[in-house]
Amino acid sequence: MVASLRLPSLTSLLFPATTRYPAALRRRVLCPRNRPASGFATAPSGTAASPEVHRLRSDQAVTPRSQDFNAWYLDVIASAELADYGPVRGTMVIRPYGYAIWEAIQDYLNVKFKETGHSNMYFPQFIPYSFIEKEASHVEGFSPELALVTVGGGHELEEKLVVRPTSETIVNHMFTQWIHSYRDLPLMINQWANVTRWEMRTKPFIRTLEFLWQEGHTAHATPEEAEKEAKQMIEIYTRFAYEQTSIPVIAGRKSKLETFAGADTTYTIEAMMGDRKALQAGTSHNLGQNFSRAFGTQFQDENGERQHVWQTSWAVSTRFVGGIIMTHGDDTGLMLPPKIAPIQVVIVPIWKKDTEKTEVLSAASSVKEVLQTAGVRVKLDDTTERTAGWKFNFWEMKGVPIRIEIGPRDVSSNCVVVSRRDIPGKAGKVFGISMEPSTLVAYVKEKLDEIQSSLLEKAISFRDSNIVDVNSYEELKAAIASGKWARGPWSASDSDEQRVKEETGATIRCFPFEQTLGSKTCLMTGNPAEEVAIFAKSY
Amino acid sequence: MVASLRLPSLTSLLFPATTRYPAALRRRVLCPRNRPASGFATAPSGTAASPEVHRLRSDQAVTPRSQDFNAWYLDVIASAELADYGPVRGTMVIRPYGYAIWEAIQDYLNVKFKETGHSNMYFPQFIPYSFIEKEASHVEGFSPELALVTVGGGHELEEKLVVRPTSETIVNHMFTQWIHSYRDLPLMINQWANVTRWEMRTKPFIRTLEFLWQEGHTAHATPEEAEKEAKQMIEIYTRFAYEQTSIPVIAGRKSKLETFAGADTTYTIEAMMGDRKALQAGTSHNLGQNFSRAFGTQFQDENGERQHVWQTSWAVSTRFVGGIIMTHGDDTGLMLPPKIAPIQVVIVPIWKKDTEKTEVLSAASSVKEVLQTAGVRVKLDDTTERTAGWKFNFWEMKGVPIRIEIGPRDVSSNCVVVSRRDIPGKAGKVFGISMEPSTLVAYVKEKLDEIQSSLLEKAISFRDSNIVDVNSYEELKAAIASGKWARGPWSASDSDEQRVKEETGATIRCFPFEQTLGSKTCLMTGNPAEEVAIFAKSY
Repeated sequence: MVASLRLPSLTSLLFPATTRYPAALRRRVLCPRNRPASGFATAPSGTAASPEVHRLRSDQAVTPRSQDFNAWYLDVIASAELADYGPVRGTMVIRPYGYAIWEAIQDYLNVKFKETGHSNMYFPQFIPYSFIEKEASHVEGFSPELALVTVGGGHELEEKLVVRPTSETIVNHMFTQWIHSYRDLPLMINQWANVTRWEMRTKPFIRTLEFLWQEGHTAHATPEEAEKEAKQMIEIYTRFAYEQTSIPVIAGRKSKLETFAGADTTYTIEAMMGDRKALQAGTSHNLGQNFSRAFGTQFQDENGERQHVWQTSWAVSTRFVGGIIMTHGDDTGLMLPPKIAPIQVVIVPIWKKDTEKTEVLSAASSVKEVLQTAGVRVKLDDTTERTAGWKFNFWEMKGVPIRIEIGPRDVSSNCVVVSRRDIPGKAGKVFGISMEPSTLVAYVKEKLDEIQSSLLEKAISFRDSNIVDVNSYEELKAAIASGKWARGPWSASDSDEQRVKEETGATIRCFPFEQTLGSKTCLMTGNPAEEVAIFAKSY
Repeated sequence: MVASLRLPSLTSLLFPATTRYPAALRRRVLCPRNRPASGFATAPSGTAASPEVHRLRSDQAVTPRSQDFNAWYLDVIASAELADYGPVRGTMVIRPYGYAIWEAIQDYLNVKFKETGHSNMYFPQFIPYSFIEKEASHVEGFSPELALVTVGGGHELEEKLVVRPTSETIVNHMFTQWIHSYRDLPLMINQWANVTRWEMRTKPFIRTLEFLWQEGHTAHATPEEAEKEAKQMIEIYTRFAYEQTSIPVIAGRKSKLETFAGADTTYTIEAMMGDRKALQAGTSHNLGQNFSRAFGTQFQDENGERQHVWQTSWAVSTRFVGGIIMTHGDDTGLMLPPKIAPIQVVIVPIWKKDTEKTEVLSAASSVKEVLQTAGVRVKLDDTTERTAGWKFNFWEMKGVPIRIEIGPRDVSSNCVVVSRRDIPGKAGKVFGISMEPSTLVAYVKEKLDEIQSSLLEKAISFRDSNIVDVNSYEELKAAIASGKWARGPWSASDSDEQRVKEETGATIRCFPFEQTLGSKTCLMTGNPAEEVAIFAKSY
């Protein structure tokens, strides 16, 4: 259903009239490789790219991931045209191919939110400064990151305005006007919005001064209901990560030190990137009564008593796009899970003589038509500007899951060649797939499912081979030093946790929901511990 | 397709668990009518509402439109829970029922934009102040309305940042990096975003400090293409207005004085509200080379020459929701065209004895199921908190196009009663419609179509009976003084146009595309005129 809504866009959207290759790529054919003059604090360092004029080949298109993960990441974003740097330091322009991935995320989550009883709405982004100060730990957490509007319509404002970094305060201000009795509860809303946090170290998608997200906000009559809601939403995020993006996140609870400013409990999904750093990919907070007490958000219960509501908030942002890039990409470039890929199948027609061109293009068009009608997001690259080989490399770099090749011999045998992006070279190439519509559609759909699962399995085995179970601080340090995640029993103090961070650079990512049974001994203190925690360096 | 995507939300979305009536309405049952302490400059004046405790009846729910249009408008927005006032003066919270109308607008336009080759993307909202100053008439038009960020992360910024009032400047800054050759053109993008304009006189939906919109931006190789695009987009808006919202807008060209700051030509759709004031409901600008010259947005043409691109921009905003309210609403409240109504059909079950309850509710549930499966957005109001009569009034006030009543006698005869929102009282009520699924679905769909057309016809005849053809300034003044629109030949000067505005309060809304043939004489100067213009007071 979601796919069908997005379908009309898929040929017209990304390359409206004809395939137009990114100017950046075309420039590279003639010019020395150039990176954007970066407004980002963590600008890419120079790479070993040749300064001479060189012809673009896909293996030159992006710095190999194995060589320099950060340079690779920035190259992929530029070459695949996912995003560009905005004129203000730390801001990002999300380009059509990157935005289409965000739209796929939106389409899925939006349906899930509505199915679970949430309504979309919209709150103003300007928040009176005094609101931020009302909840003590909230102001402490957010005040260093605020952007302030001080002038409006040519006049200095009496009260400066905060450009929303998150909306708990303004949401509570409104909730006090809408919630009066237990009959008004639960109140469950969501908004898709931009937010601003004045970050010092920025990186496209991962941490930008302005980003896009959804933020859910709910109010409940009991703490049990709020807890159930917070858990439900992290569960929705977890399923989304696994099933749609093939990212095997680990869901769990944040330590007190890492809990959201203003929450009682923060649940998180943590993903392992290709460089084995952790990415917090989504969070769900049980806010308890912290904001309702600060703002006086009360209701009359069934016995006529005034009570403060119990609340949650939860969010996923454009950061997730960065997580997808850094989980699945390889030396060649992007690798997109089929379910969120803007283009699932690219068709590359191949001909040498003009006499072959007509029949090849005609066959390619009908294959496109067949797949499109079956709900597959398909792109026919029929431009004459580039060779077939160049196109292979280009669409591999763009991470398209399946490529279909059609040449004159395929036309005469009524067959096509199908290549998988996730299996390089000949191993991923199957010849002689029939063009007969039902056969072809079934084959392609099966392969898309296989790729989706295969990416997940690969990511799971990468994750699991990079988590080390540790039972002492020495073991923890060794694991972190080797670039891995450390998992071990933990019941030590906040200051011990702080010490680990200072000495190793790793933080507690979460106490995972999945715990082993049996008695445990804290790796730091030797005291009894109820849970294992996962430590890792993170973005 | 659009409807099917939005379907999952429609029972869960607006009233997740059970029907919960707005707190504001419930309060009114016990309290004297109260209006929100308005942060809006055009706050409603007091009305004749009784200060005593009174029981809500629908005719008391909102100030009758015929009595006080402005008070009615604000009452409808509050009672139907479309929006609320934000804490910062002139800002608005869009509540779920209002936001669902905006989502319907988005769903339709988003598909049309993609079908016509536009891609969605996202630009940062913070624009360096220096950008705004680059295009002379643009800075003149927008500088009085800017909100400025001067502090970020606790530090005074070196260059103050504009919170985007519109994005032509930042779009051109980026276009210069993406456009190099004629092969990069046309470049056609759109973004859904919030924008900020520091307006002094605000009104919910119509003019707010922050609002939501889509803004399309395109670049072309020739002026002809840009002109064609600008016209195409105003045509898409026009069809949208007529076919989806039943608003018979008049499309045309703005006068030079009313042209967008930075455009060569502005096309507009102008709608007549219920108080006969005009509402500019969407605009499409041919920007010529104004921004490309200011920003140096150039391409190499097929002959190798450097040329500035030709551009357009076009937008529709949440203001359209205000236009829908003010076009179709009546004394009773909101009246929504079926195609954009969040709820198209409400089912009200009626019973007296407990023995009747089960069978009535069971019949009501299956009717709901049948309609939902057929793609109708349907709500079953099965709460016991209110009487059926109260529910009738409530859902009429909310503007739901069709009400289905089911009582014990209907159950035994396997029939339902269908009432149309747009035909008050008995005249709009039809008894004995069979519950047999295919019959019922066909009947309901036919009625929804009829209502959609009927609202349009009513609005057309209202519009046409309130436009006066004038041939002299005296006639123009008389028409405007009587509250109508004046249409007459015009070829006078900008200062004459300014004089009309000062003396009558009316502006040229547009030179409509539909012109009568034959020679014309300017109503002001007696000189030959090529076109008629439409004058009206406006929002």
